[in-house]
Amino acid sequence: MAPTQDKKSWKEINKTHKEQRKKWKEENLVKKLKKKEQKEQAATDFTKQQEQDNISYLKNLSTVSIAVPGSILENAQSEELLTYLAGQIARAACIFQVDEIVVFDDYADAANAKKSTIEDISGLKSVRHSCVQLGRILQYLECPQYLRKHFFPIHKDLHYAGILNPLDAPHHLRQNDNFIFREGVVTNKPVKPGRGSLVNVGLLQDVGVDKLLTPGIRCTVKLLPQAENSKKIKGLIVGPNLPRQETGVYWGYTVRLANSLSQVFSQCPYKKGYDVTIGTSDKGSSVDEFECPSYRHLLIVFGGLQGLEVALENDEVLNVDDPKLLFDYYLNTLPDQGSRTIRTEEAILVTMSALRPRFSPKYSPTPFVKEQHCLNLNKGEETSQ
Amino acid sequence: MAPTQDKKSWKEINKTHKEQRKKWKEENLVKKLKKKEQKEQAATDFTKQQEQDNISYLKNLSTVSIAVPGSILENAQSEELLTYLAGQIARAACIFQVDEIVVFDDYADAANAKKSTIEDISGLKSVRHSCVQLGRILQYLECPQYLRKHFFPIHKDLHYAGILNPLDAPHHLRQNDNFIFREGVVTNKPVKPGRGSLVNVGLLQDVGVDKLLTPGIRCTVKLLPQAENSKKIKGLIVGPNLPRQETGVYWGYTVRLANSLSQVFSQCPYKKGYDVTIGTSDKGSSVDEFECPSYRHLLIVFGGLQGLEVALENDEVLNVDDPKLLFDYYLNTLPDQGSRTIRTEEAILVTMSALRPRFSPKYSPTPFVKEQHCLNLNKGEETSQ
Ligand SMILES: C[S@@+](CC[C@H](N)C(=O)[O-])C[C@H]1O[C@@H](n2cnc3c(N)ncnc32)[C@H](O)[C@@H]1O
Ligand SMILES: C[S@@+](CC[C@H](N)C(=O)[O-])C[C@H]1O[C@@H](n2cnc3c(N)ncnc32)[C@H](O)[C@@H]1O
Repeated sequence: MAPTQDKKSWKEINKTHKEQRKKWKEENLVKKLKKKEQKEQAATDFTKQQEQDNISYLKNLSTVSIAVPGSILENAQSEELLTYLAGQIARAACIFQVDEIVVFDDYADAANAKKSTIEDISGLKSVRHSCVQLGRILQYLECPQYLRKHFFPIHKDLHYAGILNPLDAPHHLRQNDNFIFREGVVTNKPVKPGRGSLVNVGLLQDVGVDKLLTPGIRCTVKLLPQAENSKKIKGLIVGPNLPRQETGVYWGYTVRLANSLSQVFSQCPYKKGYDVTIGTSDKGSSVDEFECPSYRHLLIVFGGLQGLEVALENDEVLNVDDPKLLFDYYLNTLPDQGSRTIRTEEAILVTMSALRPRFSPKYSPTPFVKEQHCLNLNKGEETSQ
Repeated sequence: MAPTQDKKSWKEINKTHKEQRKKWKEENLVKKLKKKEQKEQAATDFTKQQEQDNISYLKNLSTVSIAVPGSILENAQSEELLTYLAGQIARAACIFQVDEIVVFDDYADAANAKKSTIEDISGLKSVRHSCVQLGRILQYLECPQYLRKHFFPIHKDLHYAGILNPLDAPHHLRQNDNFIFREGVVTNKPVKPGRGSLVNVGLLQDVGVDKLLTPGIRCTVKLLPQAENSKKIKGLIVGPNLPRQETGVYWGYTVRLANSLSQVFSQCPYKKGYDVTIGTSDKGSSVDEFECPSYRHLLIVFGGLQGLEVALENDEVLNVDDPKLLFDYYLNTLPDQGSRTIRTEEAILVTMSALRPRFSPKYSPTPFVKEQHCLNLNKGEETSQ
């Protein structure tokens, strides 16, 4: 072979190699980009699927609501005992996995009732003060401890909050609890363009989510499995009902205020209303003969000091004479009671316990499976690869 | 007819008449005396019969006891809330017609427990202070209001008694309630020889009873129908279980203190002990599968902050490892609880309500019949004959 040829060929070879390497590099880059795109698409699809699931879950979820008059606070002998009583209602609701607490005004429009404003799931309202205060304490207790400073500024209604027994609800997660869902507050920390917000979910580190949301709002986050060599935690914004639907774990209650007994029904947040309603009274028929029909949205209504008769009398809309006629069932949940009167806060525990084995929800949540629903996070520690 | 004869005959007739009248009078007197004797005999017989009935009733009466650790008071955040908590236990017991509350020490012999003395149905005892205080508040609430000043002198354990919700128990009768039985205190008012004591039963007038008793003791009185033209009210001393047995009306609970979990069983006041025993825990088996056997004396035991395991650990007598082995049944009375822990005072209401429809007492009291068991007293008013 001629040396020039050799030289040439070496040059050529080198050139070809260079070009090839360049091509490979480019191909690799394209591949990588494609992979990334695919990944991102998958994540978006996942989120979209989640959202759709959320909606259908929301449609299907069977719920239990209780309604309690705020006026029961008005007979408390001190502000401390008033707070304690509100706490008893919250705990009873939590113990029995209630989805919605409706606080209603059973003396609606009575002349000299002190009114206050509060924001519930349907917006800002002017309501009888005792109802507002009960609503506020119920909301306070439902909120995970690590979020309270964000949502509950100092307020005189919460002056004795320190004496409240905690709900010890499963969504009140401690820093070292491993669970796939967490309640959080959207931070105002700056994020790169195109990235979602950082959410404080009670972990040492904020979670980067898939959406850009208004700072200060409360949200539910589904944590994603952490990449092996990453310290960052990522998550998806999901509906508040998803945790319960996917894991079977109780995820707290919402609070709604109603200015009268009729509004308990008329302002129902579920599209088709409550499909099974139960009124409670010592004048009702015995719970022992009660068979609960299958329900999507069950409502159980409790009276105050003077019972549901008075709530009905004070209602300007309802025209019936007997509270029996308002409900599908009007139940005495403790035949043979040994005391002349059962207090509302006692009646909730007694009633829910008597009804529980009879409950037949149309759509129950998936049962809890620890392996599926717990998530070990690196929590900012260096992982040994 | 001859006039002398006539005269004589008139005299004779008169004499005969006089004698006859005397005889009649004597006969009447004898009759009256006999009647009186008979009446008295009848009353004595009645009392004797009552006593015998009492004994057999006592033998037969099916009862429900609950046991609660006094230590639950130790976690209260203030003396007011402590008192309120004790009141919740009392009300729960009353609502479910509990016959006996056993307050036990679940940390028995723990080194630095504050001890106090109290008198319960078995006499004077030295017991952990929280148990004594719970026992005292339970006894205070069970006692009809009109008798409290006699049995509950001012005591620091009762300092906040003013905030307690009343039991509103059927034996807490008001002055104008008509009921055949009443709880009373024996007065020290002087009575004629042979007469029984005067008892204050919460009426304007004291009741003269069939027995002479030590002034100051509490007793149960069965009122006798009042003679039409008499202002006096008479009654018979009866056993404390008779009202419930005869009328079906709940007549309060007794309080017993136990220095350990084992004493809950070993110091049982019923001759043959408790024949059905239930322990409660979230680690128990589901109440939904529970079938309650027929019982004479049912016992349901609740744990404190750390559950019955700790009460068992702290017991020097009991050798078993697992509280399950201590009871005929170890029940989770709220499968699927929405809170991580249920507090003892909540668990009592929840448990009793879940168990109530399953209770099957061997001997239930006579059902209440108003006509039979209410008594209209003249109450010192002049009756128009
Ligand atoms: C103080 S009570 C109201 C007065 C009256 N005793 C009654 O039940 O209508 C307060 C509330 O507790 C509930 N409650 C009380 N006793 C009950 C019973 N035996 N069965 C069901 N609910 C009862 C009812 O919701 C009632 O309105
Ligand atoms: C705070 S809990 C004790 C700790 C623990 N959670 C337990 O049940 O053993 C206090 C008491 O309430 C009662 N309790 C709590 N949850 C219960 C449940 N699900 N079923 C029956 N009893 C319960 C038990 O008597 C328990 O000892």
